[in-house]
Amino acid sequence: MLIVQKYGGSSVADAGRIRQVARRVAGARADGHRVVVVVSAMGDTTDELIQLVKEVTDSPPEREMDVILSTGEQVSIALLAMAIKDLGEPVISLTGAQVGILTDNVHTKAKILHVNTARLMDELNRGNIVVVAGFQGINSANDITTLGRGGSDTTAVALAAALKADLCEIYTDVDGVYTADPRLVPEARKLDVVSYEEMLELANLGAVVLHPRSVELAMQYGIPLHVRSSFNHNSGTVVKEAENMEKALVVTGVAYDMNVAKVGLYNVFDRPGIAYKLFKALADENINVDMIVQSAMRGDRNDISFTCTQGDLKKALQVVERLLPELGASGYTSDDSVAKVSIVGAGMVSNPGVAARMFEAIYEEGINLEMISTSEIKISCIIKAHEAGKAVKALHKKFNLAQEHDQ
Amino acid sequence: MLIVQKYGGSSVADAGRIRQVARRVAGARADGHRVVVVVSAMGDTTDELIQLVKEVTDSPPEREMDVILSTGEQVSIALLAMAIKDLGEPVISLTGAQVGILTDNVHTKAKILHVNTARLMDELNRGNIVVVAGFQGINSANDITTLGRGGSDTTAVALAAALKADLCEIYTDVDGVYTADPRLVPEARKLDVVSYEEMLELANLGAVVLHPRSVELAMQYGIPLHVRSSFNHNSGTVVKEAENMEKALVVTGVAYDMNVAKVGLYNVFDRPGIAYKLFKALADENINVDMIVQSAMRGDRNDISFTCTQGDLKKALQVVERLLPELGASGYTSDDSVAKVSIVGAGMVSNPGVAARMFEAIYEEGINLEMISTSEIKISCIIKAHEAGKAVKALHKKFNLAQEHDQ
Repeated sequence: MLIVQKYGGSSVADAGRIRQVARRVAGARADGHRVVVVVSAMGDTTDELIQLVKEVTDSPPEREMDVILSTGEQVSIALLAMAIKDLGEPVISLTGAQVGILTDNVHTKAKILHVNTARLMDELNRGNIVVVAGFQGINSANDITTLGRGGSDTTAVALAAALKADLCEIYTDVDGVYTADPRLVPEARKLDVVSYEEMLELANLGAVVLHPRSVELAMQYGIPLHVRSSFNHNSGTVVKEAENMEKALVVTGVAYDMNVAKVGLYNVFDRPGIAYKLFKALADENINVDMIVQSAMRGDRNDISFTCTQGDLKKALQVVERLLPELGASGYTSDDSVAKVSIVGAGMVSNPGVAARMFEAIYEEGINLEMISTSEIKISCIIKAHEAGKAVKALHKKFNLAQEHDQ
Repeated sequence: MLIVQKYGGSSVADAGRIRQVARRVAGARADGHRVVVVVSAMGDTTDELIQLVKEVTDSPPEREMDVILSTGEQVSIALLAMAIKDLGEPVISLTGAQVGILTDNVHTKAKILHVNTARLMDELNRGNIVVVAGFQGINSANDITTLGRGGSDTTAVALAAALKADLCEIYTDVDGVYTADPRLVPEARKLDVVSYEEMLELANLGAVVLHPRSVELAMQYGIPLHVRSSFNHNSGTVVKEAENMEKALVVTGVAYDMNVAKVGLYNVFDRPGIAYKLFKALADENINVDMIVQSAMRGDRNDISFTCTQGDLKKALQVVERLLPELGASGYTSDDSVAKVSIVGAGMVSNPGVAARMFEAIYEEGINLEMISTSEIKISCIIKAHEAGKAVKALHKKFNLAQEHDQ
């Protein structure tokens, strides 16, 4: 089999763990597989580099951010290749540029356009294990780019797709995908299988095991992902095509996201093009808007609220302020002490009353709902940040997630 | 003017110093010059990366060493570019690979074969200050290489040569080239001008201000080097073509090198090809042999001694051990607690008795001479390491180097 394995930052946090990963990689090769390994930067490396940048300037050009951030993974690939070589296995490391992971030009948040497989296949055919730097690529101008959050997962899935790999294993510091964050809900249960769609919602909703981008890509190319721990040999969670929607659980899991900021605009014009103008301007600044809620009309004016990450809030408010006159808004408000709590389940669509049960659980805890947004397989609520833990626990209990098939 | 400036590791050791370098670079641009800046890794970065490697393996593959070591300079170029941008100057950073600094395939000790100037000229013509990573290149297989010791100086001179720069400034933590190490000899005097040949000998002999490779390259292409401090605006030492050999000082400076190991082989065959076999085998292992001394014949046997760096000693002894039977040697000895002390001066060639004065000074200190080697413009002696300081001081005094033109 051709296997792509991805190891996150905590799996390569120090020399001991790097040697441990090397043994696991060598093991896969000893089992007769061809192996491509994608690694993240060691532990806190990226944070340390960002700290270094902050000491130099408050407003680093994003092109140069990518030049410095990409060194983190470059250190990891060299060290892991050394550790694998130490076990007697033939191995070579490649940066994103050396592989030819071509991206667009959006520095610090680049998207992969194409993966050149020539060098990869060359090295595999020579019998080498190939260790590839995650999170990074190169644009058409030969400049280094980074992929932003979830970048290394995305690299792994993109390589698996380009190489038509048989399996893509995502090694992390948890045993798999749980019905809720086990640190918050001790009775949370590991899921053996979860569909791409459910995983996508869970990932989007703050379950940090996989980044939604990588799930989306895996779904698009039909690459099964095996999410498992690099610290033990337990089997983890397989993310794949849903096989039988009828048997799907009503609710698969509860997720939460603390990195949420809320922005509300009052009394904007109620006319065509207003939402377009606002969200186009936000998109132009590369701000990822998550939830959008537009309230019922009051005369000729509307309220529009949206959420984004806390890191994007400052930029978002600049956009909002600039557009206030054009939108006719009488003012705006923002709050970065909120959280998003969500329930996800492919069976939700055929089971009425799920939303009501969710709101009931939250009401029973005396928690106020600030925004609500729903899709076919998920319901999300914005609440005060300090009440998130309480809400997640209550929802996990309300939907009996600690027991299999007993909702 | 087109100026290439090179800043060493101590000049970019922290955020404050990086901002200081940025101001100096911006100053050169404000004076109307086009500027290419070459930087080394920050302070102890390289040592830290080597430490990290040691924690993973005792025998790192050299290809992977280059992958990890090259990240040090990549961090520097990004930070310096950020600091320059912060001052409002247009700037771009480029890695060795991005410039197209093509090298041979000798990992960790690569030699520059060619510098592609297309991207550099492009960025200069766009009005950008270009910040280039020193010490690194790329080979024809698209693999990252590093240039070994003195690599960043060599990068700077190679860029200056390829771009036909008007000036190459080497910024360091000392004010220029001295008649002896000022830390050892307080009365040592800064030289205003020194010829390539003298600088080459001084550099080869342990004056750490410039690496001999870079001096050789500068001499080859006739690039004047201005060696000066990045911590003040004093003018430093200009290294250039000797203008008037007649006026040359008998002795320009005293140098010493503590990174020396001595190897001696006893009773090797006295027949053609023996020295070739030994030094070819050492060269094949990329061991830089420095001094070579072959003693007078005793019957049909010779003694051969040579010196190398302490880091190469282990590898050198492996070669020697392997060749012992073939060379007919009865045994060998090695000593890594020796030092090389040298005097250099272009006027030496026309002034007899210089060697005798040197040996006299060393004799007066009661120091034993273990090896002697001479060239037209230098004399080097191997002595016990702990006596090096005493010898340098005595030589500086013997040749009146504290006074100008009074030998």
